[in-house]
Amino acid sequence: MRYEIRLAGSGGQGIILAGFILAEAGVFDKHHVVHTQNYGPEARGGVSVSDVIFSDAEIDYPETLGLDILLALNQRACEENLASMKPEGLVIIDSDLVERVFWGQVVRVPFLSRAQKKFKDQKVANMLALGALVPFCAWVSPHSVRKAITKRLSPEIAQLNLSAFQEGLKLARRLKKSLKFYEVEGAIEV
Amino acid sequence: MRYEIRLAGSGGQGIILAGFILAEAGVFDKHHVVHTQNYGPEARGGVSVSDVIFSDAEIDYPETLGLDILLALNQRACEENLASMKPEGLVIIDSDLVERVFWGQVVRVPFLSRAQKKFKDQKVANMLALGALVPFCAWVSPHSVRKAITKRLSPEIAQLNLSAFQEGLKLARRLKKSLKFYEVEGAIEV
Repeated sequence: MRYEIRLAGSGGQGIILAGFILAEAGVFDKHHVVHTQNYGPEARGGVSVSDVIFSDAEIDYPETLGLDILLALNQRACEENLASMKPEGLVIIDSDLVERVFWGQVVRVPFLSRAQKKFKDQKVANMLALGALVPFCAWVSPHSVRKAITKRLSPEIAQLNLSAFQEGLKLARRLKKSLKFYEVEGAIEV
Repeated sequence: MRYEIRLAGSGGQGIILAGFILAEAGVFDKHHVVHTQNYGPEARGGVSVSDVIFSDAEIDYPETLGLDILLALNQRACEENLASMKPEGLVIIDSDLVERVFWGQVVRVPFLSRAQKKFKDQKVANMLALGALVPFCAWVSPHSVRKAITKRLSPEIAQLNLSAFQEGLKLARRLKKSLKFYEVEGAIEV
């Protein structure tokens, strides 16, 4: 039993921190976890990728075999990683930044504009995205993610990040309920 | 051109944070970097391992091929990872926690007791160790490590961690000078 999540975006979108928190949450939930991030030189303006693999057994092969979830925070991050998906996998996109997705099961949430509107801070779009991911992934509990956020961030920014996480969670739960999930392409308007 | 560093210890020794900072420092120094951490469930009390690979080109193979540096913060972390070394690689150990090392090139520093004595805080042993590693690795500059520490830690703890890093740097520079390094086994008494 193995579950693979890729977070992909550009530098500065908080992909690495989100992966870090997701990995720690998996540890709190008693899984074996491998977390890999691949950085290119910032100047290259490349796609930043963070992979988190959960398993119930020791993980001998630390590379992804087929993604269960891809979170894509820009167009290129989305296009370059669809080839790594499992056929039944789920793609979650920031609909402010990804225009087109040729994939079956897609959840669209405008993370960036929601972060700006609700929290006056675009930096927490990553925590909104993390919150939106969790309801679709049985391997991490919201409780463990909150614990990891609290552990890793300093007190003065933890609260804001926790609030953004909760907002993402709320949006995704609503979406999940309103759709026949895993059967149709999701479109959320919030 | 590829350079591989493994940080190994037990949970709570700050291996993951140290790897994270080392990886970011490598990015600041314009390298391609892959950072992988493998977590077991905490209950297992296993060895926590964080690998950082630097390269001048894109890294297609994200697993280690032969370690240039192993930083081992306990006996088991040391023993289990010697098989992954390059023959000419360097092993850096916490001499408070690792008793025996059967390896050619070893740098021994009592990180834990030095952290306690100098900073009254054993938690910064990881930053001392990071400081001790940098003079032996041409791929990251002290400046970039300081930048990564400042970026990743909250202001109230950054200064302590920066001081511990500087102390490690100082110890290792002294050691490097006083030994014919890479020819004899190092033994430091501080």
